Amino acid sequence: MNPMPRVLAFDIFGTVVDWHGSIVREVQALAPAVDANAFALAWRAGYQPAMQRVRSGELGWTRIDELHRLILDDLLPRFGLAHLDETRRQHLNRVWHRLAAWPDAVAGLTRLKARFTLCTLSNGNIGLLTNMAKSAGLPWDCILSAEVFRAYKPDPRTYLGVAQTFDLAPAEVMMVAAHQDDLAAARGCGLQTAYIQRPLEFGAANPKDVSPDPANTLHARDLLHLADLLGCP
Amino acid sequence: MNPMPRVLAFDIFGTVVDWHGSIVREVQALAPAVDANAFALAWRAGYQPAMQRVRSGELGWTRIDELHRLILDDLLPRFGLAHLDETRRQHLNRVWHRLAAWPDAVAGLTRLKARFTLCTLSNGNIGLLTNMAKSAGLPWDCILSAEVFRAYKPDPRTYLGVAQTFDLAPAEVMMVAAHQDDLAAARGCGLQTAYIQRPLEFGAANPKDVSPDPANTLHARDLLHLADLLGCP
Repeated sequence: MNPMPRVLAFDIFGTVVDWHGSIVREVQALAPAVDANAFALAWRAGYQPAMQRVRSGELGWTRIDELHRLILDDLLPRFGLAHLDETRRQHLNRVWHRLAAWPDAVAGLTRLKARFTLCTLSNGNIGLLTNMAKSAGLPWDCILSAEVFRAYKPDPRTYLGVAQTFDLAPAEVMMVAAHQDDLAAARGCGLQTAYIQRPLEFGAANPKDVSPDPANTLHARDLLHLADLLGCP
Repeated sequence: MNPMPRVLAFDIFGTVVDWHGSIVREVQALAPAVDANAFALAWRAGYQPAMQRVRSGELGWTRIDELHRLILDDLLPRFGLAHLDETRRQHLNRVWHRLAAWPDAVAGLTRLKARFTLCTLSNGNIGLLTNMAKSAGLPWDCILSAEVFRAYKPDPRTYLGVAQTFDLAPAEVMMVAAHQDDLAAARGCGLQTAYIQRPLEFGAANPKDVSPDPANTLHARDLLHLADLLGCP
């Protein structure tokens, strides 16, 4: 029998906010001729390889803002946008600070917050996550990030770092994410895990497999359903 | 002419919460015969020397929770409380997580939050500051702490760390504190500074000099007055 968790740690990109839809909307407004769906997918596809350059030691500690910019500068010529000047590149790169919450997120988090301590546990940097919370109205108790632990998920230092931050046993922390690999790594560190279905994370043209993995503690349609499952009125 | 700050970084102990009054109340309830005022002052007096052991390298990185406990264990026999068992020591040590806000704090911060990003910049650890925010209702956008920067104030890495976290120039950050030495160190790093009068920080028996230092950008009676001075309705 699992203990009731004390802290819920949330993955952000895809789990709490809709990166694909947000980027598509901004790119469509900026450059109507560009395939915004392909642009969003390509930008996100550069994310794991960029973090891998940090994990491998090829790059020293580098924040996601800088990694997003490296990928973006590589991407723009491939989409006919090489002419974008520095100011507009900086603005576009900060779209990750302005991502829109999934429709259930603010209401679900608000219910969960009454019973649990809610923190982020994202590879996004602290400033990005704080700006996003302010613009999307996300009511975190605490912003935790790879930047705090100087390691990117799935490094165990991130998951165990949440437990250590709050002087808890790993099983008193529940990782909440829309990605089975993130949850599997958290489980490997002894955390409880809750999977959130986000079938449209990659856009309506690329529906995602959201089948349950029985290894997870909970499986929820969205954050309102998670609040139901955890008994939060 | 100073730019309008974007981020306000708050010292916590004494500036936002009343450590002296909170400790006096808990010690009086626990042990009516003890001089609770002297106990609170002695516990706090151990704080700078304990951090100095970390700054000097005598101790490796040690969180305030652990430093508070070292001081407490030294203090209890001096106040006739050597018999306190481990559970009660742990509970008493966490009084720092339960400190009460000054009466103006929640309303003042709520007004300021509508216009600025509000973060903590305290030597308190992240878990302590998060638990305190939850129990006292402090509406931070982000919990920053010596623990994030692995250095205690007045180390420049803490003040400059806030600016770097948010990709701002130091002058776009305003340090808010009830302690002139904290503000002087922040100013030395290029931050703007706001002094908050807390004449009763050390209790009614030990009123504190709260005269203005013209080197500060602002001088406020409390956080409601700071909101007035910064034009926050």
